[in-house]
Amino acid sequence: MAKEMIRMTWPEFAETGDCAVALCVGSVEQHGPHLPFTTDLLIPYDICLELSERCGLLVAPPVYYGYRSQPATGGGMSFPGTTAVSAATLMKLVEEILCDFHRQGKKKFLLMSGHYENTAFLSEAAYLFTEAHPDAKVVMINWFEMLRPETLERLFDGKFPGWEVEHASLTETALIMHYHPDLVHPDRIPDQEGKPFCPRPTVYPEPAGLVPPSGILYSAKGATAEIGGAMAEEIVDAIAGVLADEF
Amino acid sequence: MAKEMIRMTWPEFAETGDCAVALCVGSVEQHGPHLPFTTDLLIPYDICLELSERCGLLVAPPVYYGYRSQPATGGGMSFPGTTAVSAATLMKLVEEILCDFHRQGKKKFLLMSGHYENTAFLSEAAYLFTEAHPDAKVVMINWFEMLRPETLERLFDGKFPGWEVEHASLTETALIMHYHPDLVHPDRIPDQEGKPFCPRPTVYPEPAGLVPPSGILYSAKGATAEIGGAMAEEIVDAIAGVLADEF
Amino acid sequence: MAKEMIRMTWPEFAETGDCAVALCVGSVEQHGPHLPFTTDLLIPYDICLELSERCGLLVAPPVYYGYRSQPATGGGMSFPGTTAVSAATLMKLVEEILCDFHRQGKKKFLLMSGHYENTAFLSEAAYLFTEAHPDAKVVMINWFEMLRPETLERLFDGKFPGWEVEHASLTETALIMHYHPDLVHPDRIPDQEGKPFCPRPTVYPEPAGLVPPSGILYSAKGATAEIGGAMAEEIVDAIAGVLADEF
Amino acid sequence: MAKEMIRMTWPEFAETGDCAVALCVGSVEQHGPHLPFTTDLLIPYDICLELSERCGLLVAPPVYYGYRSQPATGGGMSFPGTTAVSAATLMKLVEEILCDFHRQGKKKFLLMSGHYENTAFLSEAAYLFTEAHPDAKVVMINWFEMLRPETLERLFDGKFPGWEVEHASLTETALIMHYHPDLVHPDRIPDQEGKPFCPRPTVYPEPAGLVPPSGILYSAKGATAEIGGAMAEEIVDAIAGVLADEF
Amino acid sequence: MAKEMIRMTWPEFAETGDCAVALCVGSVEQHGPHLPFTTDLLIPYDICLELSERCGLLVAPPVYYGYRSQPATGGGMSFPGTTAVSAATLMKLVEEILCDFHRQGKKKFLLMSGHYENTAFLSEAAYLFTEAHPDAKVVMINWFEMLRPETLERLFDGKFPGWEVEHASLTETALIMHYHPDLVHPDRIPDQEGKPFCPRPTVYPEPAGLVPPSGILYSAKGATAEIGGAMAEEIVDAIAGVLADEF
Amino acid sequence: MAKEMIRMTWPEFAETGDCAVALCVGSVEQHGPHLPFTTDLLIPYDICLELSERCGLLVAPPVYYGYRSQPATGGGMSFPGTTAVSAATLMKLVEEILCDFHRQGKKKFLLMSGHYENTAFLSEAAYLFTEAHPDAKVVMINWFEMLRPETLERLFDGKFPGWEVEHASLTETALIMHYHPDLVHPDRIPDQEGKPFCPRPTVYPEPAGLVPPSGILYSAKGATAEIGGAMAEEIVDAIAGVLADEF
Repeated sequence: MAKEMIRMTWPEFAETGDCAVALCVGSVEQHGPHLPFTTDLLIPYDICLELSERCGLLVAPPVYYGYRSQPATGGGMSFPGTTAVSAATLMKLVEEILCDFHRQGKKKFLLMSGHYENTAFLSEAAYLFTEAHPDAKVVMINWFEMLRPETLERLFDGKFPGWEVEHASLTETALIMHYHPDLVHPDRIPDQEGKPFCPRPTVYPEPAGLVPPSGILYSAKGATAEIGGAMAEEIVDAIAGVLADEF
Repeated sequence: MAKEMIRMTWPEFAETGDCAVALCVGSVEQHGPHLPFTTDLLIPYDICLELSERCGLLVAPPVYYGYRSQPATGGGMSFPGTTAVSAATLMKLVEEILCDFHRQGKKKFLLMSGHYENTAFLSEAAYLFTEAHPDAKVVMINWFEMLRPETLERLFDGKFPGWEVEHASLTETALIMHYHPDLVHPDRIPDQEGKPFCPRPTVYPEPAGLVPPSGILYSAKGATAEIGGAMAEEIVDAIAGVLADEF
Repeated sequence: MAKEMIRMTWPEFAETGDCAVALCVGSVEQHGPHLPFTTDLLIPYDICLELSERCGLLVAPPVYYGYRSQPATGGGMSFPGTTAVSAATLMKLVEEILCDFHRQGKKKFLLMSGHYENTAFLSEAAYLFTEAHPDAKVVMINWFEMLRPETLERLFDGKFPGWEVEHASLTETALIMHYHPDLVHPDRIPDQEGKPFCPRPTVYPEPAGLVPPSGILYSAKGATAEIGGAMAEEIVDAIAGVLADEF
Repeated sequence: MAKEMIRMTWPEFAETGDCAVALCVGSVEQHGPHLPFTTDLLIPYDICLELSERCGLLVAPPVYYGYRSQPATGGGMSFPGTTAVSAATLMKLVEEILCDFHRQGKKKFLLMSGHYENTAFLSEAAYLFTEAHPDAKVVMINWFEMLRPETLERLFDGKFPGWEVEHASLTETALIMHYHPDLVHPDRIPDQEGKPFCPRPTVYPEPAGLVPPSGILYSAKGATAEIGGAMAEEIVDAIAGVLADEF
Repeated sequence: MAKEMIRMTWPEFAETGDCAVALCVGSVEQHGPHLPFTTDLLIPYDICLELSERCGLLVAPPVYYGYRSQPATGGGMSFPGTTAVSAATLMKLVEEILCDFHRQGKKKFLLMSGHYENTAFLSEAAYLFTEAHPDAKVVMINWFEMLRPETLERLFDGKFPGWEVEHASLTETALIMHYHPDLVHPDRIPDQEGKPFCPRPTVYPEPAGLVPPSGILYSAKGATAEIGGAMAEEIVDAIAGVLADEF
Repeated sequence: MAKEMIRMTWPEFAETGDCAVALCVGSVEQHGPHLPFTTDLLIPYDICLELSERCGLLVAPPVYYGYRSQPATGGGMSFPGTTAVSAATLMKLVEEILCDFHRQGKKKFLLMSGHYENTAFLSEAAYLFTEAHPDAKVVMINWFEMLRPETLERLFDGKFPGWEVEHASLTETALIMHYHPDLVHPDRIPDQEGKPFCPRPTVYPEPAGLVPPSGILYSAKGATAEIGGAMAEEIVDAIAGVLADEF
């Protein structure tokens, strides 16, 4: 059974010993008209639960709010409901959570995210934490880095349009279909053609119109729960391998 | 249907208009051998979902990690698994979440907690937020302040031992039995007599032995899901009244 | 003679050895028309001077400005002259003062306050300080926690209305009458009946009219210097006992 | 009568209108074997009380703890009892106090110090405060900048050795003799000759032996209360002139 | 002539009017045995000087120290001399510099970097700055985003190995050869074959051996000053176009 | 040859062993119509390069932006182009740079400035750094403290008007003439007589008109490159002596 801390009692925690701790950091970010705001948290969290069943990872209570969404990766702060915290606060929050688990004797950490914009800040939190606690180790993973290009080619019949247009698109939709079918609205998936997203220099304040009105960069119409399941399997395998190597 | 943001899409959010936003802040704190670490988040969050169904509140993604647990209110940082963040970070986190909803036009907030130790820090966050945004209003509630003493007397047949020994005890157990029966382990509830907790001056570092080894201050044996349901009803009614007055 | 650091020279300090250090943190908060703004500092400071005479405590220069006054405990920021600092700054200030005494070899601290709103922030400062300096110990006391209910019943002839309406009322007035008769204006004490203060959920911005226009929650007319003296004696005795136990 | 806020009630404050507010920031710093730690606070505070009597200044509760003492100005952190806070905290503290008086409608401030090391930090606090509140004005004064060289020549019969060796020496001793004769120990004034202090590049960690073992840089033997009184008069006159010009 | 602020006087600055300001942020990071530590600053700075000559940009004094180097982009903190500041400080520094130019009336900014690791932090600084100053605009560019793949194919005869192994390799070497031939040591360029760099999940503390001992990811042997010149021309053209569009 | 890190490669750095590191912190501040904004950085940096040639100092990449210019020392924030960062950020930046060199084994530091306003903040950075790293030593020098009064008398034929009017005046002009003749515009030196600058209490917001419209406090007409060279020689000699004593 997964060691999901939000459901556990303290005597159960006390038995986890020197088990690695997975901390998932998400985002509250629009994911098109068909996926929930918490897509970026749900995917890493569900993957961690599977890893927990397989190799005994302790899954810590997650952090929902992540760093500001950026147009370049398909989001941007102008969509209704996209809500974020500052870089400074996100870094402190993650650093302190790691520190407080370390105070209790935990020394192996998997820091998981599915929100590209979190990466640099989680990295700094992990740097500061391990600088202060050299006996600890943090492995930091974005789930989408764990999929081989050939897998995506195969699963999407050669039609995977590339990560640069993946936001609320094929991979995320398939994974949520697999893990949380009740949270996907397939009927609302926009038809939108794969107009290649043209990255421009980043401009602040965020210009209007960078992301299509639907909030997605490429139609998710080819996604299925089966594809999601296959992807999840590969990701879980790959991370399990990393954890075996590192811890 | 409850407007639970973690399950919603952005077009659904866009329809919420000037609806009040409920932000729940919990704790990751031991709650005896029979209740989960997230008890202090689950209760306010479930209450907010009920309020959402009744009066249209938008329930924001919650914050799991709260301020450090203190022995005086039944916890303390020495139990395995009790994990917290600093006051400074908690305040910044909450202030920034409120600010980012305000950027999107939300101006009415219910800040809900069930963890006594969060109170002063949520209060400062709300002060700083409304000082910077005078057109916003924050109502801050600990659910346990909403129960009338006479209700507790009645529900527990005159045996309610007082809030000062309530930690993972009668009220919290009853409420989790009502909302999440699968997360309660009634068979593990300690028999422990109601030894009145003797508050001493607060001492740092936290002295050992202030809280009984079970982590609870009074046996939860009298708790039932029915009592929990009756309590929930009174709390929801009371808060609905407050919201009607304030917003 | 009291070891009052604001009056001492460095060779006198050099002789205090490993003596405990008392740091008093007050507030600049209205205390009705008859008591001074610094009531919350004066009472703990005077108590510490007595303790110093009795058991050799070193009384550090005090901190006048405390955390924001809240209506729920009888104050609120809307009265003219009530002046406060942020939680973040108060915590840092107290932590740094403790650290700098520790740099000089002091390891035993009494952190005294008479302003309820300071409590959580002093607590965090003490936590952070002792986490970084595990050889130090901090005892944190609000003077009003040291009085037994039966004493109050006796001293006020059964008319003590309870701490929830005590702000610039019977106990504070009696204590300032005892320690600083020149700072009390008995003729300006409002007649105001003991209208029980009705705590509502905390609301920000602070609503008008929560506290009576006089700034006090209950008439202080029953207070005398004699009662103040008796209270001071019990408080000093109780704290002396705590210090003997802890240090 | 001086408007000394630590002794005032809120209705008295309410009458001060748009009166200028004096905030004194001191230090807890050794001042030789004959003067108290709080010399740097007492002198500005007493000067402000005189100014208050003369021109209606409101004297705010003072800040005792200032910035770290430096050997170059006669102190250094190695003397027993010298206790300080960080630059960051001192700046925030002063900025917030000014802001909170401004919230109440005060716009004219006298920021007074007698501790040279505070200067740059008070300056930054005043800059940040007035940048955020352009309708406010801060006049920042170190009392020792207000004395004319010819006055010192006259009062000390041509034997004033220059400010660079003035620490717990002639001027501070004379002023404390004038304002607080009970806090001076004339019999403990060291005989020490005026060995010119040789400033070297600042070195950290602070080298030992920069300041004579007594903690003073020049014997204070020529100081008298009369001289202190004459100095105080000139300082008060000069500041009164500045305030008349600026406010 | 380039408007290079480090060489200008204030009357010259006063004539720049509403001209855009370029702020370059670099890194102090090893760039192999043949390029200087400041390669990441020199390239953007020289490009900005060219832009200044062409379209009147004001080039602000640069920031040498950037964010920590990461193995994944060819660096890592373990090479001698690689020196960095924290994310929090870098963000504050850049935000404050932008703010202080804005105080003087500048509203158009080009934020230039050549150090990939700076990107997210410069982005946050730009977000916070423009959120507080909505009349300002920041264009943020990494010079390497401005080169078309086909140009690289052509200039390197189809042998450009891809950005993922470009650190102190072909492009940076060619550009420094073009701008600062005296700072390149062509004879020290390692022969090292283009072993494709295998990105693993990021691990903290930084594992040894991720980057080849030379500090470069691919041999720079094909670089020439002529290629550098052609690259510079394309980059300058492209940015000039962006600036014409945005400002 | 000078060990100038901005021009060095990592293998060259690796050979510097336990060599002292010089960090120069400047300002971006008007220096009259004839000197560049970076005068306060150039002078210390050039002096350090000379010291490097003579005694093997490693000269770190400099910090251009310093603390806010103040009228009292000849500047003020109102001149076009004067651009600064906050005290808090400057302190953090310098502390972190020192820390990151210390991580690499460097323990001896020369912290050089030519901008008076930086002094207190560099001092705090050095204090915090050495408090955390007691095996490190920081020598902090403003170049102008290293010149003997008799030298100035001799070099300027008895017409040196004193440091209080030296801003973009005789000494700075002579030194820039010596080190960077191309950056001086002798023909633009104002004729302005030496009107003694009348220091008043510091007032915020900065009053207009404190500094003459040219931005200099005393005409620099007597400055020559030869005088600059003689000054540079004395300063370099003096610092070399200090370094020999301290390291």
